[in-house]
Amino acid sequence: MTENVIHLVLGRLPDAPAGVKGISLFIVPKFLVGADGSLGARNDAVCASLEHKLGIHGSPTAVMAFGEKDGAIGYLVGEANRGLEYMFTMMNHARQAVGLQGLGIAERAYQQALSYARDRVQGKPVGWTQPGNTGIVNHPDVRRMLMTMKCQIEAMRGLIYSAAAHVDVAHHAEDPATRDHAQLMADLYTPLVKGWSTEVGNVVASLGVQVHGGMGYIEETGAAQHFRDARITTIYEGTTAIQANDLVLRKTLRDNGQGIGVLLADVTATAQAAEAAGLGIGAQLVKGVAAAKACVDWMLSVAKQDLRLPAGAAVPFLELMGILVGGQMMAKAALAAKGSDQPFLAAKLVTARFFADHVMSKIDGLAQSIIAGSDAIMALDDEVL
Amino acid sequence: MTENVIHLVLGRLPDAPAGVKGISLFIVPKFLVGADGSLGARNDAVCASLEHKLGIHGSPTAVMAFGEKDGAIGYLVGEANRGLEYMFTMMNHARQAVGLQGLGIAERAYQQALSYARDRVQGKPVGWTQPGNTGIVNHPDVRRMLMTMKCQIEAMRGLIYSAAAHVDVAHHAEDPATRDHAQLMADLYTPLVKGWSTEVGNVVASLGVQVHGGMGYIEETGAAQHFRDARITTIYEGTTAIQANDLVLRKTLRDNGQGIGVLLADVTATAQAAEAAGLGIGAQLVKGVAAAKACVDWMLSVAKQDLRLPAGAAVPFLELMGILVGGQMMAKAALAAKGSDQPFLAAKLVTARFFADHVMSKIDGLAQSIIAGSDAIMALDDEVL
Repeated sequence: MTENVIHLVLGRLPDAPAGVKGISLFIVPKFLVGADGSLGARNDAVCASLEHKLGIHGSPTAVMAFGEKDGAIGYLVGEANRGLEYMFTMMNHARQAVGLQGLGIAERAYQQALSYARDRVQGKPVGWTQPGNTGIVNHPDVRRMLMTMKCQIEAMRGLIYSAAAHVDVAHHAEDPATRDHAQLMADLYTPLVKGWSTEVGNVVASLGVQVHGGMGYIEETGAAQHFRDARITTIYEGTTAIQANDLVLRKTLRDNGQGIGVLLADVTATAQAAEAAGLGIGAQLVKGVAAAKACVDWMLSVAKQDLRLPAGAAVPFLELMGILVGGQMMAKAALAAKGSDQPFLAAKLVTARFFADHVMSKIDGLAQSIIAGSDAIMALDDEVL
Repeated sequence: MTENVIHLVLGRLPDAPAGVKGISLFIVPKFLVGADGSLGARNDAVCASLEHKLGIHGSPTAVMAFGEKDGAIGYLVGEANRGLEYMFTMMNHARQAVGLQGLGIAERAYQQALSYARDRVQGKPVGWTQPGNTGIVNHPDVRRMLMTMKCQIEAMRGLIYSAAAHVDVAHHAEDPATRDHAQLMADLYTPLVKGWSTEVGNVVASLGVQVHGGMGYIEETGAAQHFRDARITTIYEGTTAIQANDLVLRKTLRDNGQGIGVLLADVTATAQAAEAAGLGIGAQLVKGVAAAKACVDWMLSVAKQDLRLPAGAAVPFLELMGILVGGQMMAKAALAAKGSDQPFLAAKLVTARFFADHVMSKIDGLAQSIIAGSDAIMALDDEVL
């Protein structure tokens, strides 16, 4: 049976204004459709070639040629010259979705690595005092890798669910002030969801390969596929740098740091609750907020003299904020787990502590590279690179 | 023309002692060889299957079956039961070589990314004031990625060349004390060369993909191949954790920190020279040595109560030491460049400064995760992972 294929295409009408203002959105079908819904003539929309990609082989990417021979027929979607605006409706949703993809690949890589580490016996782990052998899960460095995967997955999940909740509240709350606050948080969370969760997804998928050792390098094992699939997520629907520029240039500098101040006050509230409850992560959150504020102040102060400074600091700042809000999520989860049964409670407390000592410990270094290091980025003539 | 294939195989003679002490090294040819050198009967050495690997497709990996049908004939290499010792002769050389492979892939990824970034025009970079368009090389975040690649490549090259020089001096110096010192340095540098250069090689190859954007994900571009090829280097000839255990358990704890104290004194000498010359990296080296010493002291103090603590800290400690000695190399290069012509001198000074602010800035966080974070590694029952 012949099936139709629908292409969504951005293009220009003959009388369109110049630049992005003249971009419209079209539906371009493979077959034209008759009034009765039957498939008619073949449209001039042709697949010129299929790309050979590093991963996501279940999702073919094609070079399409539209109208090269006879001219293709397209149907305008919505109003003329509003294509880019419509595209961003998709894009804002896609950014949340690709962040979720980073989390999903990370979770799958973790489950597979954990299962392998329990089954695979190799030597006697350092400090292993129990009788008989055990899986490599009890080798300290394998455990360190698994904990690094696990704690970041939990932090990403908290971040992504919270972002989705803010989007829901922004759309549906009755009180306008509540909607506005939720929209502000959703706007700030979106580049973190996309930018941070995909970068972390790559690191976690790579750790998944490493836990497997040589077996991880063999495609049949499956660990390598997560590593290959994850690699697109920091690129498509806006690279990490695009997310970071959105966070810094549009959402931090434009309102003079007001919005991000609201987000940082929210982190501080969690930090204080965590400190009151005696959680070590509270002190790390307080330190992290101070580091973030110092970075914001620095970016605001240098932006007027040279916008390249905050732009060069944007990706490290996105990483810093991702880790900080991720840490907030770990603290919230540990606080919420209070009164739960063991071993669930122990897992939440230890995982929050691990995140504080092994992930949040990066924050001060990131702040240093932002504040002290940004002027070295553009210091060389590109000919001597 | 039929060609012979020689397999080097570790195995056991019938009367071999138990455990690794009974392992011998054999040559097992595909065809037996007559006294006149002619090829004789087919030996029972069969390729059972070829692996499908993530990368290094130019180097086939096979599952071999020896003697499953008729029994294979092998020829003893050297003396019986010394196979593991012979294998480590190869392995020590291979560790230097695989570190060099990490560097080689990184350099190739950098050259390709730099070339692409110069050619590829996309939008007007933030802060771009010159007339006309320019390649993405002048986008601040692309430049940050290229500088991150470039400075770490230079640090790795310094480390690897210095390690090779120490090996040469250890073999050929006339003075026994000079030989001993060089051997000590070579022993400590080897896990850094293998462990750190391969981890950095992966990061650099991944940045190479990122600089290419979506084009990097298409195999035809070539960036993805470096990313796939680099991934084996932290695994074969001893994973990063194996290198780190060698550095910590064998080469730091066993002599009570004496040897690594000599290496840290050598870094301190460079730090003082850099400070005297007014290089900012000098202060970072001083701080880095203090952090490394604090980690060594901590590992020595906890090793007796629980060897799992330094074992869990080993990979972060290897990264810390790689960055520190890498920073020493950058300082040495900047000092040696004094009096050179511009723009060579400027490139050395800026690259050292970039390394100090963007890479050495990680050291304090690593020390924190080592000293504060190691007890969280094994804190959970593996059933709740």
